[in-house]
Amino acid sequence: MTEGQVFKGDIIFTPTPQGFVSFRGGYIVVLHGKVEGVYKELPPLFDGLPVHDFGRRLILPGFVDLHVHASQFYQSGVGLDQELIPWLHGRTFPLEGRFADPEFAREAYSRFVEELIRQGTLRACIYATVHKESTAILFELLRARGIGAFVGKVNMDCHCPPYLQETTAASLQETEELIMRYNGHPLVTPIITPRFAPTSSVELLEGLGRLAQKYNLPVQSHLSENKEEVEWVKELFPSLPTYADVYYHFGLLGRTLTLMAHAIHLSERELELIENSAVWLVHCPEANINLSSGIMPARELLDRGIRLGLGSDIGAGHNLALYRVMVRAIQLSKLRSIEDPRIKPLTTAEVFYMGTKGGGSFFGRVGSFEQGYSFDALVVEDEPLITAGFSLEERLQRFLYTGEAGQIAARFVEGNRIG
Amino acid sequence: MTEGQVFKGDIIFTPTPQGFVSFRGGYIVVLHGKVEGVYKELPPLFDGLPVHDFGRRLILPGFVDLHVHASQFYQSGVGLDQELIPWLHGRTFPLEGRFADPEFAREAYSRFVEELIRQGTLRACIYATVHKESTAILFELLRARGIGAFVGKVNMDCHCPPYLQETTAASLQETEELIMRYNGHPLVTPIITPRFAPTSSVELLEGLGRLAQKYNLPVQSHLSENKEEVEWVKELFPSLPTYADVYYHFGLLGRTLTLMAHAIHLSERELELIENSAVWLVHCPEANINLSSGIMPARELLDRGIRLGLGSDIGAGHNLALYRVMVRAIQLSKLRSIEDPRIKPLTTAEVFYMGTKGGGSFFGRVGSFEQGYSFDALVVEDEPLITAGFSLEERLQRFLYTGEAGQIAARFVEGNRIG
Repeated sequence: MTEGQVFKGDIIFTPTPQGFVSFRGGYIVVLHGKVEGVYKELPPLFDGLPVHDFGRRLILPGFVDLHVHASQFYQSGVGLDQELIPWLHGRTFPLEGRFADPEFAREAYSRFVEELIRQGTLRACIYATVHKESTAILFELLRARGIGAFVGKVNMDCHCPPYLQETTAASLQETEELIMRYNGHPLVTPIITPRFAPTSSVELLEGLGRLAQKYNLPVQSHLSENKEEVEWVKELFPSLPTYADVYYHFGLLGRTLTLMAHAIHLSERELELIENSAVWLVHCPEANINLSSGIMPARELLDRGIRLGLGSDIGAGHNLALYRVMVRAIQLSKLRSIEDPRIKPLTTAEVFYMGTKGGGSFFGRVGSFEQGYSFDALVVEDEPLITAGFSLEERLQRFLYTGEAGQIAARFVEGNRIG
Repeated sequence: MTEGQVFKGDIIFTPTPQGFVSFRGGYIVVLHGKVEGVYKELPPLFDGLPVHDFGRRLILPGFVDLHVHASQFYQSGVGLDQELIPWLHGRTFPLEGRFADPEFAREAYSRFVEELIRQGTLRACIYATVHKESTAILFELLRARGIGAFVGKVNMDCHCPPYLQETTAASLQETEELIMRYNGHPLVTPIITPRFAPTSSVELLEGLGRLAQKYNLPVQSHLSENKEEVEWVKELFPSLPTYADVYYHFGLLGRTLTLMAHAIHLSERELELIENSAVWLVHCPEANINLSSGIMPARELLDRGIRLGLGSDIGAGHNLALYRVMVRAIQLSKLRSIEDPRIKPLTTAEVFYMGTKGGGSFFGRVGSFEQGYSFDALVVEDEPLITAGFSLEERLQRFLYTGEAGQIAARFVEGNRIG
């Protein structure tokens, strides 16, 4: 990274969910990896800085994937004729079992990381598996490639196959070992990752809550994806009033920054717990249809001011491409709107915000080109002969709906080119 | 095309919607462009034929797109925040107006045809625009590229902008001129194409019905896509009981082979008209969500034995890739199933059938590798290191869900390699 640099092109981003800001042939000045400003004309002050001139290409914030299972990459697109619980047991757990072998993990995680970056995702919140050594490999691979990530060793000490089940003590100890080894890096750091309430004993949840507080680490888990799952949690934790209360009770919801994926079937009490604390909900539209889970009420959540990001949720979702996930979020919102016209569909700006600045805020100043934001950016080559008469917003729309990874010509994280 | 040839690889197809038939390392013998048989071992009789050995690549039938507007290719992915009627007037008609210019038509149709083929669609039922000369260019381009198509000059003599409105007489005369010029080709021939009932006068519908019978030509149009449209048709044709009756009354539904796209909001009477005649309905899931039209009740239509195919419906749909349209059809069926668990979701085999043999039957013996079928095929390179333990069906599923055009390594129509 040079100390100062200038990026020129057709710039577009969403400072708010209400709409796009764009600069045709504009300039982004980047100092020490952070955006200093975006300009129609380059101020003379920055005349001496090197200019990366991308001509009429689009420059947009990199995508932020708030929920993805790296270990499930090989199974994406198969076995999607089942709902959550049978899908976990029939497909997902057997594949995750293979990550006991570090050689397999290195191969599978390498392919995952390359495809994630190819598709333009530059920040991600990632589940590994229960295996410490494989998880360490994923940390190393991500650090070597230069994108931003939270990486979670999964914790499971009950209600899973014997080949994945940990003892509570070992689960907590190995998690802490990884924390001590990998905390403190500028881009790739640990996140506390109980898989979900049903595969966690009370002791595990208590221990993970303690670790989150001890190291001030963020937490990620699954919440209310499937009705059968919600009922199961009620049976397993009869003394706690709701699913969200399980995490809350053990210090795993909002005590530190928290991600909860899916959040389809939430009660009013759960929404209140969430909106008053540092919780981001993750909309995973592709996965939610593939496993027949339902449609997240994203419009109502946005209207309440709840923080929302997008997740590919590989392998229940099948698209690592977050631009396709954005389109699916719009499509599902239209289906809700057909049922009830009072629910307005999500706009392109809203889903783009969710997949950039909305999710990026979990990482800090990420996902926008406002001053002080990390310069995480994609350069997209669109089809100039087709889109000649289009606005920048229309060109971006066309890329989100019809684009392919091959159109992403360059990727920058914190001002460094990484692909 | 050589007289006889053999194709070797991992073969998969759907003779029925009930399931896949597959041959790992099998042989397809093709004589004069038609499938002679599929074999586990090559019978000695065919020992002398040249063998195209595709190793462990998948060989599948080419995709059949039963509903696509070639003229709307440039607008796919933009302006999808509207419903049908405002979308037509705000976006679609202005773009179609540009096809008055043959040079623009040549450029836009060339790009469309190349992208269609790149995505693996080898047969398509295509709408051009009202313009005779541009439509002729589309015929020529398709013939030069060697895929199979029905091409329709669109007819509109009312309720459209003045720059697209034809006189009834000119509309009929130019349609007949194109018929005389382009009928009789083995692969690319005309289809009668009233845009839809609301943009057709009674005289136009009568005249088009006569042309269909005179030349024994197939017919394509739109039916019951949007509730507002259905109401409009009622107002415009008050003496006819239903929307489908409008086409039926004028000899445009089932008198010759007929395609009706969308068919979301059908009455029992309309279903009876359709199931008892040579009508194919076209499921266009992507377009139906993008324009908030609703979800076609595909399961019930299949159960009644109604002929069903798939349509990309570019530009209301945004994916020319029919494999993505197949996935969307499954996803929408799952959403219906969540609402009403008695409605079973569509299976992968069912949507694959719809996008190959189901739609292909409109062209004759197309879309399967059974004896006598045209050898229309795609060779797909999947990810052998990832899918090593997968069945052929799982490999195909993964391609449908996660594949890209770049994985299609070869395309054959009637035994001729065309890309």
